[in-house]
Amino acid sequence: MVEMTLTMLVHPGRRVEVVKALRSLMRALQSARGLLACRVYVESDNPNSICYMEKWNSAEEMDEQIRSIHYTRLLSIIEAAAEPPDIQLSWVSQVRGLEYLRSVRLRDDGLQQPVN
Amino acid sequence: MVEMTLTMLVHPGRRVEVVKALRSLMRALQSARGLLACRVYVESDNPNSICYMEKWNSAEEMDEQIRSIHYTRLLSIIEAAAEPPDIQLSWVSQVRGLEYLRSVRLRDDGLQQPVN
Repeated sequence: MVEMTLTMLVHPGRRVEVVKALRSLMRALQSARGLLACRVYVESDNPNSICYMEKWNSAEEMDEQIRSIHYTRLLSIIEAAAEPPDIQLSWVSQVRGLEYLRSVRLRDDGLQQPVN
Repeated sequence: MVEMTLTMLVHPGRRVEVVKALRSLMRALQSARGLLACRVYVESDNPNSICYMEKWNSAEEMDEQIRSIHYTRLLSIIEAAAEPPDIQLSWVSQVRGLEYLRSVRLRDDGLQQPVN
């Protein structure tokens, strides 16, 4: 599995336009081969900080889109960023769920650690 | 690197309270050992869909927090979800950036593929 995460800060005046463009990209991608998920988020304390995320079954299927008009559009949207955007592609080797949290907490139930 | 992503749908009446609680958790975590990033997002088309993300340098450092009061609080916040929340822990084996997009696009510049 591969995850692409784009985080960008936009000028307040361009926020609505950028979110709309990313949501349009997201809709167009829905039936793409190998797409597991696609989301557009805004940061809870700063609506000008936008996060666009794609999750792919494999790098090959993601690469197919990277070479397509989809990424041409995405790279064009990035140009609206107020600061250089952050793009991160993460190759995921293992995925766990709530059962992992439970197992770690049960394993060391007597060892309560502080947050810091 | 390990990423913990919690996605939850909350009742509209509890949204402000849940976002506030997650942001308070995020602030308390800032100086935690091994924390690379922590964010609270809301989905752009549905403010009741909330995404809380933590990024850790290693599973050991994440586990330390999973055993702490931090995750006790996080698991308690999850109880406010309108539907069973989604928790995903992803072990990341490789990270690439914008240069990866450029290399894939240059490699097959003549092969423009459709989005679907």
